[in-house]
Amino acid sequence: MAVGEQTWTKVLFSDQEIAEQFSDHKLFASFSRFEQALIRGLSQAHLIDPADAAHLIDQVANFAPDQAAIAEASIQDGVPVPEYLRQLRAHVSGPGSKLLHHGATSQDLVDTATIETLAKTGTILSKRLDKLLAQLADLETRNGENALQAITRMQPALGFTASDRLAAWRHPLEDLRSRLPKLREQTRILQFGGAVGDLQALGDKAAIIAETLGRELDLRWPGHSWHSARGPVLAHANFVSELTGTLGKIGQDVALMALRGDEDIKMSGGGSSSAMPHKQNPVTAERLVTLARFNATLVSGMHQAQVHELERSGAAWMLEWMILPQMCETAGASLAAAIALVQSIEVMGKPA
Amino acid sequence: MAVGEQTWTKVLFSDQEIAEQFSDHKLFASFSRFEQALIRGLSQAHLIDPADAAHLIDQVANFAPDQAAIAEASIQDGVPVPEYLRQLRAHVSGPGSKLLHHGATSQDLVDTATIETLAKTGTILSKRLDKLLAQLADLETRNGENALQAITRMQPALGFTASDRLAAWRHPLEDLRSRLPKLREQTRILQFGGAVGDLQALGDKAAIIAETLGRELDLRWPGHSWHSARGPVLAHANFVSELTGTLGKIGQDVALMALRGDEDIKMSGGGSSSAMPHKQNPVTAERLVTLARFNATLVSGMHQAQVHELERSGAAWMLEWMILPQMCETAGASLAAAIALVQSIEVMGKPA
Amino acid sequence: MAVGEQTWTKVLFSDQEIAEQFSDHKLFASFSRFEQALIRGLSQAHLIDPADAAHLIDQVANFAPDQAAIAEASIQDGVPVPEYLRQLRAHVSGPGSKLLHHGATSQDLVDTATIETLAKTGTILSKRLDKLLAQLADLETRNGENALQAITRMQPALGFTASDRLAAWRHPLEDLRSRLPKLREQTRILQFGGAVGDLQALGDKAAIIAETLGRELDLRWPGHSWHSARGPVLAHANFVSELTGTLGKIGQDVALMALRGDEDIKMSGGGSSSAMPHKQNPVTAERLVTLARFNATLVSGMHQAQVHELERSGAAWMLEWMILPQMCETAGASLAAAIALVQSIEVMGKPA
Amino acid sequence: MAVGEQTWTKVLFSDQEIAEQFSDHKLFASFSRFEQALIRGLSQAHLIDPADAAHLIDQVANFAPDQAAIAEASIQDGVPVPEYLRQLRAHVSGPGSKLLHHGATSQDLVDTATIETLAKTGTILSKRLDKLLAQLADLETRNGENALQAITRMQPALGFTASDRLAAWRHPLEDLRSRLPKLREQTRILQFGGAVGDLQALGDKAAIIAETLGRELDLRWPGHSWHSARGPVLAHANFVSELTGTLGKIGQDVALMALRGDEDIKMSGGGSSSAMPHKQNPVTAERLVTLARFNATLVSGMHQAQVHELERSGAAWMLEWMILPQMCETAGASLAAAIALVQSIEVMGKPA
Repeated sequence: MAVGEQTWTKVLFSDQEIAEQFSDHKLFASFSRFEQALIRGLSQAHLIDPADAAHLIDQVANFAPDQAAIAEASIQDGVPVPEYLRQLRAHVSGPGSKLLHHGATSQDLVDTATIETLAKTGTILSKRLDKLLAQLADLETRNGENALQAITRMQPALGFTASDRLAAWRHPLEDLRSRLPKLREQTRILQFGGAVGDLQALGDKAAIIAETLGRELDLRWPGHSWHSARGPVLAHANFVSELTGTLGKIGQDVALMALRGDEDIKMSGGGSSSAMPHKQNPVTAERLVTLARFNATLVSGMHQAQVHELERSGAAWMLEWMILPQMCETAGASLAAAIALVQSIEVMGKPA
Repeated sequence: MAVGEQTWTKVLFSDQEIAEQFSDHKLFASFSRFEQALIRGLSQAHLIDPADAAHLIDQVANFAPDQAAIAEASIQDGVPVPEYLRQLRAHVSGPGSKLLHHGATSQDLVDTATIETLAKTGTILSKRLDKLLAQLADLETRNGENALQAITRMQPALGFTASDRLAAWRHPLEDLRSRLPKLREQTRILQFGGAVGDLQALGDKAAIIAETLGRELDLRWPGHSWHSARGPVLAHANFVSELTGTLGKIGQDVALMALRGDEDIKMSGGGSSSAMPHKQNPVTAERLVTLARFNATLVSGMHQAQVHELERSGAAWMLEWMILPQMCETAGASLAAAIALVQSIEVMGKPA
Repeated sequence: MAVGEQTWTKVLFSDQEIAEQFSDHKLFASFSRFEQALIRGLSQAHLIDPADAAHLIDQVANFAPDQAAIAEASIQDGVPVPEYLRQLRAHVSGPGSKLLHHGATSQDLVDTATIETLAKTGTILSKRLDKLLAQLADLETRNGENALQAITRMQPALGFTASDRLAAWRHPLEDLRSRLPKLREQTRILQFGGAVGDLQALGDKAAIIAETLGRELDLRWPGHSWHSARGPVLAHANFVSELTGTLGKIGQDVALMALRGDEDIKMSGGGSSSAMPHKQNPVTAERLVTLARFNATLVSGMHQAQVHELERSGAAWMLEWMILPQMCETAGASLAAAIALVQSIEVMGKPA
Repeated sequence: MAVGEQTWTKVLFSDQEIAEQFSDHKLFASFSRFEQALIRGLSQAHLIDPADAAHLIDQVANFAPDQAAIAEASIQDGVPVPEYLRQLRAHVSGPGSKLLHHGATSQDLVDTATIETLAKTGTILSKRLDKLLAQLADLETRNGENALQAITRMQPALGFTASDRLAAWRHPLEDLRSRLPKLREQTRILQFGGAVGDLQALGDKAAIIAETLGRELDLRWPGHSWHSARGPVLAHANFVSELTGTLGKIGQDVALMALRGDEDIKMSGGGSSSAMPHKQNPVTAERLVTLARFNATLVSGMHQAQVHELERSGAAWMLEWMILPQMCETAGASLAAAIALVQSIEVMGKPA
């Protein structure tokens, strides 16, 4: 680990697999795909000769950006695209090369990369959700008929079974899983608007280029850009916070069951205490609550970030950059914790 | 106005038409519909004689609760249903009367009423959205070809037209309008779970009763209760905050155009200043920003309220009661302000 | 109660005594005091003849504004001051009357009124805090030596006494009470800057007028206006949210003790259930948690409202108007609930 | 840079100097100081022989923990202390060694380390604040008399000078600087409560040990622990968010001045655009707004984290760990950005 790093909280709150989707490496690979697809679009629109396009695409595909220089330049530019393009422009040559990035703007690249990243994180979350649901089904098979005390408003209500409480955990997770494809469908949207959002530099070729670009990147072209309308990223933020909230409720329940004692739940692998060796703290259950409240806090910032100024707000856009990756990581960490938690449940409820 | 009331902020931030949907009167009307539909369900399941059911339904329909007494009792009960039922039970008689509320719980009534209320507020918002979109279309007809300076990251970028900026306002509003029916479809869900969510008091008659109840109330019965899974109300909160955010962006744009001057926008009816008679402040545009930031603040609390404890959390549930009506009112006030704002635009952009 | 009103939630979440401090009536009384004090300041600076000043002050003191007309005009003006002054100007006459409001601006009146209101709500909160601390002392006298199970991270830790848990409740409340006078000292600040914050209309008389104004209103004049620097109101928001959070922690504890059962706590007057007559729900304890989370949600908006645009931001300022009164009411409701809760504790812990 | 890392946003939003204060290295150094001071306290209370204490302190001082193993164990323990102590216990020997950590608990170490870290970050912020204020004084010297258009509610109001606007920036910063020592005084508080907060393991020696510990660590012992009363960390969170909000307001002003043009402000080093080479975007000004809104979002989570359960809440405590370091880093990044921004101002206002 690097000097000056805080690693112990990373273990608790981060998610390496999700974090990698937001890495420089993936970002620049997405930029490269965008620029290649754009050249195909320009070629389709007869703005660039097919052979020149093919040559230019090859050059773009083979370009390896100087990531450190891009990071450095981002301080001044407020976005990594200008330096990426300075480097890429220096790298390409040939008759088509001056049409590189033609008609596009920084936000087209960054937002499209974000959309691609969100789709990939969605896939990761979906797989984990499947796994968690399988575990819950297994727990139901094992302990579903065990007796449990139902609790409403912090008071014992009636008796019911482990299966009943598990159903209350499972239903909203199933609902979230069933909505993931719709979310993906709704948000796999190409960002393409050019300097001020209206693709004016492309004139009447704009539509054919945009459609080609979308087809190449497997993204829907909605007929217009959405530079200052943040619906697609907001939908993802809402979704991952609903997910962590749902898992936080499970964590809260497990912590309360652990408080009530063995007739409610027996778990392995609880946390140890520096002062009381007899304790087995339900730390993973607590962590689910923490992660839920963290995303519930952050989601507010994503809603604030809707208030864009005019055609592009750096202030609002950067706020998304600060928040959205964390929200996705938190969702990933929460699912991983939930899987570990359910795995650690030895008995839920009281066998008949 | 009542002594001790603050009226001037109500004018700025409230919405009487939406507020009324959340009134005691509407709430108790919804409770009454629920109890009547439940009797029909119990009759359908042969738990109550049809004639007795008809008589009981008549009595419930004719019951006028003592609202002040219910409000008073809510301090102790933490929910208005127990006192409502105490009164209703005292009001009804006859052989079927002891089956009143049979199998149901407070949360079934309150959540179902909330769902009905949200549907009604959705209809109000939808009509205003139609009106706003019609106004924007009219403005486009009048001024669409006028020249405007596009601004990105707070700097003049390229020239474009009023039509281009109006498109950036219109598209997300059209998207929201197109999603309203889906939201309604997704969230018109009956809440019915009984004391601890599993309808155990109804045994194998639970499904037929729930389905009858849903049909009578025109709500979908999802096959289970959702006492501690707050997806439906969260979806509404997310939606209204996305709506106010979208309108807040329009407000922000108009305020910035007003700052830039007459070549960007001319409006009538600006606010006067106590110190500078020459000023015409774009107060309605500012107000749209305020309302957006307010809902973006509140939405966090709705996400926090997902962390229910076990079968029912009074703490989390009450947090929804504090927040959701305000969020809907804020959305209503925001749409009304947006309509007033667009109406006040005399010229947008610079005529050719 | 008015048609269309929601009264049962008011009972749970509002605070009439605090609400009245924010009423129109109190606001206009504060405006009147400001205008009178300003005339004294102008007289002190020899800008108005003492006799004329006295006559003008009399007229201002006897003015009864048409509150409904002010509320109505606020829609257009975005602040109640212009219409208040239109009415007041029509009401006054005589040689000094054209110097009414001289050098001041809307924000001077509104912010100064807010400061006065916050001081008054602080006094109300302080008295209730005294009462609550007295109750806790009494409870300690009664039950301090009773045995309790200490719980850390949702697991039984060691045994201790009721006195130990009560100390953990009392210390932060004592700390808050001890900080109230400092908060008041720090925030009793006159707002006075005139149209653009620099008192330019008053020239070299600015200081003497400001000092007189401050002295008359018993507020500190810091030597400059703070139109766009929201420290004083933010300090209050932070304080009341810390207070409700501290009380929310007590509520959470009581709810958990109620869950654990009679050996932890016995209370009278719990909430009844519509489905389970045997239950006594700790609804007031839950409500403390709700109120804490509500203020913890709202405080974010007060921090967002710091980002004022240039010399005065209507958008940011109005956001305070939406949030601050609610935060103060929530603090009041929370203290009232805490007092009721502690009163209802019959036994805490297990007598030896 | 590491594979899978996102570096370009780090450059924009992180602060290496602040981050290092929260590093594992600093944390374990703080743990070490705590354990050494505790041994001194135990010695002072005659619970450990002075020579044994000296030997034990030497051993603790020379201990180098296996940081990776601690990070790993934190998943299960939910806190880094148990594994740190397992390692440390294996490292020490001799007659005093079984009194290592005697009377203390994990939270004593972690919270005390946090307090030390916050004091250090406070010092860093204070130095930067001094630098920023010096720059603003310099700017005032250079351009204070230049003419500026004052803007209220997004409309030109009266003319004034650069000096007037600079005063509105400077006053709240001076106020924050003047409050830093008080904040430090108020929050340099030893955390020491043992397993359940009452130091019961130390009996009547508790006070002398606590006082020695405090004196050794240069922290105030308030006479009791504050495990579940989060005032000191909340005060820091409120402070840094007020700071970033104040700087965000400056950023917003500069962005608006840049929008209005050269008569308001001329800056060097603006951001370049990938599509429009003529532009100079005020990206640092925008970034200040972003950082302000980020902290204004996060502060809500710190207020939520007040609702601790009973003697220690892992869920609430971990939420602080997720939020507080970020808030401090954001404040650091914001001050660094503000310094860079003011440095880049070539001319503010219009020279006479």
